[in-house]
Amino acid sequence: MEMELNAQVKKAGFLQRLKEFPIKLKDGVTKRIKNVQKFGKDDPRRIIHSLKVGLSLTLVSMLYYVRPLYNSFGVSGMWAILTVVVVSEFTVGGTLSKGLNRGFATLIAGALGVGAVHLARFCGDKGEPIVLGIFVFSLGAAATFSRFFPRIKQRYDYGALIFILTFSMVAVSGYRTDEILVMAYQRLSTILIGGTICILVSIFVFPVWAGEDLHKMIANNIIKLANSLEGFEGEYFPSSEKTSKETNSCVQQYKSILTSKSTEDILANLARWEPGHGRFRLRHPWTKYLKIAGLVRQCAFHLEILNGYVLSDVKIPQDFISKIQEPCSIMSREACEALKAIAKSIKTMKRDSVCVNAYIENSKNAIQNLRIALKTSSPETEKDLLEIIPGVTMASILIEIVNYVEKISEAVEEFTGLAHFKETPDPKVSPELGQHQLLHRGSVKPVLEGDSEEENNSSPHVVINVHDEQPPTTSEKKVSGVQKTRVGVV
Amino acid sequence: MEMELNAQVKKAGFLQRLKEFPIKLKDGVTKRIKNVQKFGKDDPRRIIHSLKVGLSLTLVSMLYYVRPLYNSFGVSGMWAILTVVVVSEFTVGGTLSKGLNRGFATLIAGALGVGAVHLARFCGDKGEPIVLGIFVFSLGAAATFSRFFPRIKQRYDYGALIFILTFSMVAVSGYRTDEILVMAYQRLSTILIGGTICILVSIFVFPVWAGEDLHKMIANNIIKLANSLEGFEGEYFPSSEKTSKETNSCVQQYKSILTSKSTEDILANLARWEPGHGRFRLRHPWTKYLKIAGLVRQCAFHLEILNGYVLSDVKIPQDFISKIQEPCSIMSREACEALKAIAKSIKTMKRDSVCVNAYIENSKNAIQNLRIALKTSSPETEKDLLEIIPGVTMASILIEIVNYVEKISEAVEEFTGLAHFKETPDPKVSPELGQHQLLHRGSVKPVLEGDSEEENNSSPHVVINVHDEQPPTTSEKKVSGVQKTRVGVV
Repeated sequence: MEMELNAQVKKAGFLQRLKEFPIKLKDGVTKRIKNVQKFGKDDPRRIIHSLKVGLSLTLVSMLYYVRPLYNSFGVSGMWAILTVVVVSEFTVGGTLSKGLNRGFATLIAGALGVGAVHLARFCGDKGEPIVLGIFVFSLGAAATFSRFFPRIKQRYDYGALIFILTFSMVAVSGYRTDEILVMAYQRLSTILIGGTICILVSIFVFPVWAGEDLHKMIANNIIKLANSLEGFEGEYFPSSEKTSKETNSCVQQYKSILTSKSTEDILANLARWEPGHGRFRLRHPWTKYLKIAGLVRQCAFHLEILNGYVLSDVKIPQDFISKIQEPCSIMSREACEALKAIAKSIKTMKRDSVCVNAYIENSKNAIQNLRIALKTSSPETEKDLLEIIPGVTMASILIEIVNYVEKISEAVEEFTGLAHFKETPDPKVSPELGQHQLLHRGSVKPVLEGDSEEENNSSPHVVINVHDEQPPTTSEKKVSGVQKTRVGVV
Repeated sequence: MEMELNAQVKKAGFLQRLKEFPIKLKDGVTKRIKNVQKFGKDDPRRIIHSLKVGLSLTLVSMLYYVRPLYNSFGVSGMWAILTVVVVSEFTVGGTLSKGLNRGFATLIAGALGVGAVHLARFCGDKGEPIVLGIFVFSLGAAATFSRFFPRIKQRYDYGALIFILTFSMVAVSGYRTDEILVMAYQRLSTILIGGTICILVSIFVFPVWAGEDLHKMIANNIIKLANSLEGFEGEYFPSSEKTSKETNSCVQQYKSILTSKSTEDILANLARWEPGHGRFRLRHPWTKYLKIAGLVRQCAFHLEILNGYVLSDVKIPQDFISKIQEPCSIMSREACEALKAIAKSIKTMKRDSVCVNAYIENSKNAIQNLRIALKTSSPETEKDLLEIIPGVTMASILIEIVNYVEKISEAVEEFTGLAHFKETPDPKVSPELGQHQLLHRGSVKPVLEGDSEEENNSSPHVVINVHDEQPPTTSEKKVSGVQKTRVGVV
């Protein structure tokens, strides 16, 4: 009885599943298609690249379809197809690097291979395969070993691979054919045709420049840093209207920078192969991007540590928080603005050091204010050292972050010179910059007892002339990039 | 007169350089050779791999040299050479991944290609190239697009490439030949021969296992962390005989961990392709290594920040340093020992959680001592908060490092269970562990007022029974991995 019931239940379940199957299948397929669509929309260049590869393949097929072309190249046309498939990379730099490596390696290895076959023929019928075998073994092993050297690996890895390939193929097949020169010529010419088609399609049909990607990536990483700092401020000193969830997603943005080194290295390496394009000249200082990226990553390391404190449930006494809140808040806000200005300067390729320096000055002033706040905190009211440790550490790391923002700004300043960025127009004409100055009118560098003289000399900063002979005004003058502010009240 | 003198000077300089040229050339060549020798000695597996590639190439050349083999495969033998060159990777996992990808992709694409050619022949002489062109364009573009998907990119990127290659070649050359099935069969069989040679040589001639490399890399990274911590202790609390230069080179060891993520990911990905080998089974938990590696990297981030304070010239008041010196010193030393024990446990594949836990306990006790030291510091003797900020931050980061060491230990503990590590022999028999216990006989967990109850419950720790009914002894008992120490004096 029970078994029968079980069987009935099972049957009903099976029928139910059978009925649901088409619906589930449809849902699954729809979901997949939507995923693919979203993936394509996220970066439409992927779709364009796929179509470009299809185009190159169709073009190179003409070597077979068109009778006169087939007559001159014959089955060697397949080397052209092979070249197109292998050389078609996403970026122009990748395609150029692979295409040139393949072309030159084939040329050199083909010549060596023909030479090896001629040399081996002197050794008689029995000696020939032995001599050829020794050649193939030793050159193959040597070229493989060379691929381990970092310099060769970085730029000529593919060339070394093709060298081994072509040399082995020419030397070995030379044993069975007398038309070795014809073969080598056909192989080289078809590879040139395939490579040329790829390079032309890559450069002239919606090109993707590795250099431009690197440029944008660095700027975006700086923006991510800025957003994380902004999010941190909103998280820890919540004064704005943003919800905690919103700011938390911002705080996490720096995460991707922690491990972006390999991508940056690859892009910088490919960018070197690219000709001048857009506003990037042939000898654009690509390696300088890596220096800036290194500093940005250092900054991200600090944010990672800071984030650990934000996420932890350690409670800092409210009176201590309220004491450091204002300077810390200003520090992160101004550093964030500085980063945004730096990123904008990179994106628009226009120098804007005055504006950046002003923000950095403000955040450095906030550091001094923080120091004063910490110094003047009387020991009686201080709860105890143990409780405020997390707060002190947080503030200390924030100070380090501001220092790194200054280093980033200096590195970008050096870079903008090398990369021939345009100067920004006269600030008096630019309404935007005027607004910045207005914002900074009140920025005061506090003087702290015991502040060492070296610290004051370390960078351009706001100078306060208290005993100025002129009457105190709020007018501003810029002297060679250093903002000189005269403030009547200290 | 002056011009004549100039010319004479120039001539003398030129002769001098001409004389020096052979010496310089010889020096340069000798230097290069020495560099190459050193490079080979650093990792002799590189030389072995190069010879293995040479061997595979020589073996595959037999398809041309041996008459019966050449008769059956003909010029298709070059596909075998091509396969050997392209599939020969440094690790077994790499070779297997490429070989299997190439084999299966050729099989599928070859079948589809033959089908496409047969379909196209129905469309008449004029329609055939058009239909073939549409096939090649659309499948080429679709397969290229699929390579962008992270999952496919990670494991089947090479397979997708070979799919495009084979399909295009079969479909396009099918237009000009009637023996398409023979061609497809020859191509597939030669690729199988080449791939098999590569895989056999890779596995049976001095194999390099990606899994083993990953395993060693993680253990070495943990040792690097330990050395850096040790170096940091020597640098900041110099009590040992090591010179500052020696310790500084140790401190820097963690640097390589900061950016090792991509290498780890690649190795873990390749390790999955490998069959069981040595003490690694087929379903070894390779992904767990990445979890441990992530925690190790987090620890390295903290060391990077700590290193910033070590390198900076900020001076911390001597009396504050002397106050925190002992606990900080113990914290880093014990954490360092714990890391070394963890690394040893991974390297030897033996569980050793008792010993590791004891070290972690000691460093956690030192944290409590540090807290007491900070708490009992009377405000009068405290110079001022401003001056001790770097010291407080350093200590705070050190505490975080100890926490991460504990997390690493937990992750490794979980991993050792999954990876079937051997249990260490009974501690009473092991003389080494006995020594450890001797070292920890005096470890005391201080009780701090205001210490929250949650903190005490967070992990196994040393329990001090002051009012024990038994007379105070120094004997030790281990209760389920938690070291229970009875100490008479608190």
